[in-house]
Amino acid sequence: MAVPKRDREIAIVERLARRFRMKAAGVVVGIGDDTAVLRRDKTSYWLLSVDMLVESVHFAPRESRERIGYKAVAVSVSDIAAMGGVPRYALLSVGLPRRRAEGTVAALANGISRAARMFDVAVIGGDTNRSERLVVDVAMVGVVERRFLVLRSGGRDKDVLFVSGPLGGSQSGRHLSFVPRLEAARYLVCHFKVHAMMDLSDGLARDLGRLARASGLGAVLDEERIPVHRNGRGRASALYDGEDFELLFSMSETEAERLLGQVRRGKTPLRFYPVGRLTRRFRGVWLSDKKGRRRRLGSGGFSHF
Amino acid sequence: MAVPKRDREIAIVERLARRFRMKAAGVVVGIGDDTAVLRRDKTSYWLLSVDMLVESVHFAPRESRERIGYKAVAVSVSDIAAMGGVPRYALLSVGLPRRRAEGTVAALANGISRAARMFDVAVIGGDTNRSERLVVDVAMVGVVERRFLVLRSGGRDKDVLFVSGPLGGSQSGRHLSFVPRLEAARYLVCHFKVHAMMDLSDGLARDLGRLARASGLGAVLDEERIPVHRNGRGRASALYDGEDFELLFSMSETEAERLLGQVRRGKTPLRFYPVGRLTRRFRGVWLSDKKGRRRRLGSGGFSHF
Repeated sequence: MAVPKRDREIAIVERLARRFRMKAAGVVVGIGDDTAVLRRDKTSYWLLSVDMLVESVHFAPRESRERIGYKAVAVSVSDIAAMGGVPRYALLSVGLPRRRAEGTVAALANGISRAARMFDVAVIGGDTNRSERLVVDVAMVGVVERRFLVLRSGGRDKDVLFVSGPLGGSQSGRHLSFVPRLEAARYLVCHFKVHAMMDLSDGLARDLGRLARASGLGAVLDEERIPVHRNGRGRASALYDGEDFELLFSMSETEAERLLGQVRRGKTPLRFYPVGRLTRRFRGVWLSDKKGRRRRLGSGGFSHF
Repeated sequence: MAVPKRDREIAIVERLARRFRMKAAGVVVGIGDDTAVLRRDKTSYWLLSVDMLVESVHFAPRESRERIGYKAVAVSVSDIAAMGGVPRYALLSVGLPRRRAEGTVAALANGISRAARMFDVAVIGGDTNRSERLVVDVAMVGVVERRFLVLRSGGRDKDVLFVSGPLGGSQSGRHLSFVPRLEAARYLVCHFKVHAMMDLSDGLARDLGRLARASGLGAVLDEERIPVHRNGRGRASALYDGEDFELLFSMSETEAERLLGQVRRGKTPLRFYPVGRLTRRFRGVWLSDKKGRRRRLGSGGFSHF
């Protein structure tokens, strides 16, 4: 299976972003983060995301429709979580092959419904269309308290970088059944000062590049500390496979120690893995081995776009 | 070109709607109208719509990408207008064939940008993916003053039914270049008591069936009064072609006379066509000829789904 989002997408989205008027009234953050951010009231923001899943790109044609429905909602919940918020409402657009349309809808609805119950999301709108290939697009609305909003761009020099779980090998099945890190994200923003956060959809190397660039910094990963999932094939898999849907976040060294202390003392069952640092000394993403030798990471892999 | 939405879609959407928890906090209207409606503040609501356009279903593979971009935004603006509101923000999901991806994006962006400027919409988010066929999905956020919100379900016995322009033959080109009736809708809700309103995407016969059913009423169309577009092929075309994106609305006889008076006296350059009545005497949509003979309309055409 192809990992869907690649540098070429980013180039396209960035080009589009420049085309459009971004300084509209009420818009706090436009294109370029996990979700758009709109003013809601004095203490909170709306979060808005869209995520499209396309047959033969994000899932195999024979894949269970129930799992696809679940994934469509889970991917959007992951976006909302990465901003520090909680999901509220979803609107679904479905492009449906004529063949076995009824069965497809019933199975999709099972998966969507399961995810919606799990994350307390109300499905409030939809658009069903014919299509040669199955396409499921979810527009999600979430809410975040102003003080808990975390952007990609808030990283600071010397921040410790964390991920919320082992990475790599997601395509063996986890990419369809993962649990978005909503609980972990809310634990973090409610109890700690998180500087920058995003969810890992395109692989640690590429996504960390985005977080560091958005923060105007570089990043160094400690090769030995990157947690590799048991389904992953070594470190390269953890760096490049994508679709992990774990959180990547940064906080000051003081906060990082406090977080690790809480974990050590069993105050939370959640796990967090320090994997490196943000730095203003250089740009790009670097990998440091146990002897302290550094090499620069490319965005890696090859473009499936 | 196939008209995209048909009875089968409605059956599917209605089935989905029952599956999902509709009584969520903050939701004024869920699935079943042109947009979802959420509480915003004491005097206004948010409106949320999603509309997907799929290659070979909503537009021919060789169609201009610029026109497709324009249509994608215009269709959503039409939904927001039909609720009485004004559009504010759009989030785009694009499924993009690998071949000539850059050229496609540039042309799409031209059309999206033209529509966004025309209707004062800020594009605040996006998701670009690979896809065999071009798919463009727009999630749109609008705002409506509480007192101006109009639903499909507000129609009353003896209401006069209007459409905002001639119908039929849209597939000859108008379906890609139509101007959504935002100005007309705002004129109506700001100056008149409109009981029910929707936009005409699937043909007058089918869409009026929905409005009447949502209002718990039946409807009679005066065959002679249905305005047929010069590109349409007779009355059947006006009833069944679809993709007209004109407004269909109902108001009391008193309001209807006031509206027609304003038009006659040149107080507005807009045109409105009275085409029939809502009634509680029977269910379904009926066509009345000049001799007063009535025949019941099926939902008509054949399902392209």
